[in-house]
Amino acid sequence: MSLLVVGSLALDIIETPFAARQDALGGSATFISLAASYFYPENLGVVGVVGEDFPERAWELFRQREIDTSGIEVVPGGKTFSWHGRYHYDMNTRDTIATNLNVFADFKPVIPAKFKSPSFLVLGNIQPDLQLDVIRQLDRKPRLTLLDTMNFWITGFRDGLENTLRHTNAFVLNDSEARLLIDHPSLIVAGRRLQEMLAPGDVRIVVIKKGEHGALLFYNEHLFSAPAFPLEDIFDPTGAGDTFMGGFIGYLAKRGSVSYEDCKRAVIYGTVLASYACSKFSTEGIENLTMEQIVERFRHLRTLSAFDLEENV
Amino acid sequence: MSLLVVGSLALDIIETPFAARQDALGGSATFISLAASYFYPENLGVVGVVGEDFPERAWELFRQREIDTSGIEVVPGGKTFSWHGRYHYDMNTRDTIATNLNVFADFKPVIPAKFKSPSFLVLGNIQPDLQLDVIRQLDRKPRLTLLDTMNFWITGFRDGLENTLRHTNAFVLNDSEARLLIDHPSLIVAGRRLQEMLAPGDVRIVVIKKGEHGALLFYNEHLFSAPAFPLEDIFDPTGAGDTFMGGFIGYLAKRGSVSYEDCKRAVIYGTVLASYACSKFSTEGIENLTMEQIVERFRHLRTLSAFDLEENV
Repeated sequence: MSLLVVGSLALDIIETPFAARQDALGGSATFISLAASYFYPENLGVVGVVGEDFPERAWELFRQREIDTSGIEVVPGGKTFSWHGRYHYDMNTRDTIATNLNVFADFKPVIPAKFKSPSFLVLGNIQPDLQLDVIRQLDRKPRLTLLDTMNFWITGFRDGLENTLRHTNAFVLNDSEARLLIDHPSLIVAGRRLQEMLAPGDVRIVVIKKGEHGALLFYNEHLFSAPAFPLEDIFDPTGAGDTFMGGFIGYLAKRGSVSYEDCKRAVIYGTVLASYACSKFSTEGIENLTMEQIVERFRHLRTLSAFDLEENV
Repeated sequence: MSLLVVGSLALDIIETPFAARQDALGGSATFISLAASYFYPENLGVVGVVGEDFPERAWELFRQREIDTSGIEVVPGGKTFSWHGRYHYDMNTRDTIATNLNVFADFKPVIPAKFKSPSFLVLGNIQPDLQLDVIRQLDRKPRLTLLDTMNFWITGFRDGLENTLRHTNAFVLNDSEARLLIDHPSLIVAGRRLQEMLAPGDVRIVVIKKGEHGALLFYNEHLFSAPAFPLEDIFDPTGAGDTFMGGFIGYLAKRGSVSYEDCKRAVIYGTVLASYACSKFSTEGIENLTMEQIVERFRHLRTLSAFDLEENV
């Protein structure tokens, strides 16, 4: 089924304890759409904005991955959004050195007619009112509307965020964001309360990402605890969360399903894609994967978390 | 098979945001032996020390659970070890208000003849040299020698701890302790390096407990990622780690096995017992369980973490 991705496209400056890179391809829509592309949804469209400096190698990569870029506005003379981040030794914490919004400062997503009836929608981390505006531009309600956000919006735009959540049936966030939104020490309680903030309907999905500790999927009354992929070395965690979302919704769009069993698998596929994203700089870890590599890590995750009662209990 | 537990017995003062209790039955050997008792190992003996104030209700509890207390020394006129702890709102962090060692200050475990050939041995969190001294008093090497420790010994008695680990084939610790011992951001790397610190032999087991995020079992070249039990409310986390160890080794002692499949199950049984321990004050959560209750939570953990590839991949 069709999948629409709305979010940022960026040329980042990334510093890790081991290496540094200028003009690293980044942005939420970039990672989401690349990850989703491995499941070949019927139509995979991106809406975003870049400057004239957005490089040919990026356009070529989108073409290779069969991602429809006709919804990406190119601002004449403009510069692409750029985030400058520096990772600490443990790779779990990072400082933002600079955020140059550039053309992203005035980004008001306009959904082209061809993308106005997506079956699946991902709203990358942008201002909550803009996310809601995208939802309002659509001709029909998608089967799944998946939302991302960040501490900045939770703290400063809480009303807008809560309003947007009421038009959303799937929400992905990390554990610190969940604790910021729901002031309770238990992530289980937080997940349940977050579900109640979503649109009433058949399906209410919350995924709390816990980095090296895996993820929790709250699906209606169900709870699924997914393991993390056991990476010994993380090369660049930038975009891992977006990649997770892309793998998650890409798989569901391919299946044309939002069943609980498929959502569990979607969390595992998201985990697999994110593990590949962390293993190289920028988008390089998810530019040239094969389905065999993806399924191999899916099986690995199954092996490392499977157990059963002994016989004759 | 026979199981020997060496550790502390205590009468604690516990404060949580919701309640407080004086003379709460505690100590590593207490929680370990109570948890292990649910698997009815052939002989379950405890070696430790208490004062004359150790209450009759505690002795009665041990009798009910068929725990052999003949190795517990009662110091005439002495006072039992007492820890005074205060939990923060999130229940994950706590302050030690006071540690009154009392009779525990001069504790030098003397293993009675009847306990000198245990098949399974747990060394609760005491000074590493004392742990090694227990190992040296035995007539034969146990199939599994399971060690616990704490930050205090890691920081101040590192050489002694490393020496004791070389005589041990199973080590349980939490994630912050693992990171303190092995200065590496990846818990996967830390677990592997900890295995290398253990005695050479058929089996080298490291379990890293991650609290609300579950546990990692490193078994020779295998890795198992166990989910946490999804508790919405934690009443008193005191002794949860010891209870985990008791459930872990109690199950293995019952099975008479240290196979990988049984060790995976043992981690799950440890998780289940620990979840019950957290749900009431002190030892109350693990005083009157049934095997049905334990198996019910085992199945619950399986349900919440099981997944599989879709058909026709």
